[in-house]
Amino acid sequence: MIVAFLGTAGSGKTTMAGSFGRYLEEQGHSVAYVNLDTGVRKLPYEPDLDVREIVTVEELMAEGYGPNGAIVESYDRLLSEVGRIAREILKLDGEREYTLIDTPGQMESFLFHEFGVKLMESLSDPLLAYLFDPEILKRPHDYCFVRFFALMIDLRLGTTTVPVLNKIDLLSEEELNRHKKYLEDIEYLTARLKFDPTMQGLLAYRMCSFLPEVSPPVRVVYASAKDGRGFDELETLSYEHYCTCGDLT
Amino acid sequence: MIVAFLGTAGSGKTTMAGSFGRYLEEQGHSVAYVNLDTGVRKLPYEPDLDVREIVTVEELMAEGYGPNGAIVESYDRLLSEVGRIAREILKLDGEREYTLIDTPGQMESFLFHEFGVKLMESLSDPLLAYLFDPEILKRPHDYCFVRFFALMIDLRLGTTTVPVLNKIDLLSEEELNRHKKYLEDIEYLTARLKFDPTMQGLLAYRMCSFLPEVSPPVRVVYASAKDGRGFDELETLSYEHYCTCGDLT
Repeated sequence: MIVAFLGTAGSGKTTMAGSFGRYLEEQGHSVAYVNLDTGVRKLPYEPDLDVREIVTVEELMAEGYGPNGAIVESYDRLLSEVGRIAREILKLDGEREYTLIDTPGQMESFLFHEFGVKLMESLSDPLLAYLFDPEILKRPHDYCFVRFFALMIDLRLGTTTVPVLNKIDLLSEEELNRHKKYLEDIEYLTARLKFDPTMQGLLAYRMCSFLPEVSPPVRVVYASAKDGRGFDELETLSYEHYCTCGDLT
Repeated sequence: MIVAFLGTAGSGKTTMAGSFGRYLEEQGHSVAYVNLDTGVRKLPYEPDLDVREIVTVEELMAEGYGPNGAIVESYDRLLSEVGRIAREILKLDGEREYTLIDTPGQMESFLFHEFGVKLMESLSDPLLAYLFDPEILKRPHDYCFVRFFALMIDLRLGTTTVPVLNKIDLLSEEELNRHKKYLEDIEYLTARLKFDPTMQGLLAYRMCSFLPEVSPPVRVVYASAKDGRGFDELETLSYEHYCTCGDLT
């Protein structure tokens, strides 16, 4: 079973890959770790496959690239190796029960780069955990943004995407419950958006009204890489995904 | 008039800000330039406001951050200065005819960071040019992705977004016409998607079918920072945006 972690820089992909992996190992599962981040310095897991053996952001910066250019260039260079990387991941997938993929630090280097698209196409229907931070959930339309963003990932990468609200250890129970209500009860969210008279509110209202028609029902996972909450649910979802062909309702 | 350029690293924001600015100056307009990229090394314009005077990615890396961490940290630090930066931009906007904002190298440092959200909220209905690369347009559902991505920017930042296909100097006339057809003729795109039997095709078909109902009619600009094509249209759109309050049809 392949589970890839995607999210913006700082959303906790690497920490999650490490601690979810340890959790699975403690449950008696065999786990492989794949690092696709050319810019990471330290990993909390021992990678079985590591793209930094091919290229790193820091060596490109030493060649004269700025940080942004070096990040883009590293994935341009990895693109020619994408077939081999995919084969190695599939080999690991054949040998272990779980293969966890830690995607690039900057989400856009994966989602907007042919490297990410080609790699995901080469794996058969991988489960993708889209990690997002409670920090980005401030206003009602932010919940609409997150729900649509998970769909955008499906659309771009052809994966099955599970939205994972990470870092819930930073939230009070009241805050967590509010996030749950907005993320899961689309009727409630839509009703709240109706009272937002701005252009932004109107757009969110229209988009969310359509969400039930375009999106398959989605289960959101609430997790903390720090205290391990949500790991059991993520394990269950991975299992169900591979045993029931993508139906995660 | 404030025009902000947003797009993934490598989409050409900085080059576009420089060459569109020169074009406007040649037309006799006064232009201010704002650089919000903490990671850029060289700029093709003289910035009137430059966040690198506050913090740079490379100085944070020298402090011990990895490249991804340094990018995130730089915008965390800028967040406390966002009010002042917004006031300086509004002051420039009062003094010059055009103020061009070159947003962070990594798009996600702006779109997913409170710095970007707060800054855009503080400016009154800025026009945002969303630059995307022909490289990401390979399959019919990629056009659906781009059209929705422009909506996602509106939703997140509360801006009026103009999708700008950049680097058209790299395209043959035939390729450019194909891109135009897919980007503008939603009925044609939807009809093509209907024949894609994959889950991805089905999702794109559903999403595109309701695009006309959620999205205001959008004009796509086809531009080249290299040969200046599309600059006249971008100028017209900026003018119309500020004189007709956001109706760009």
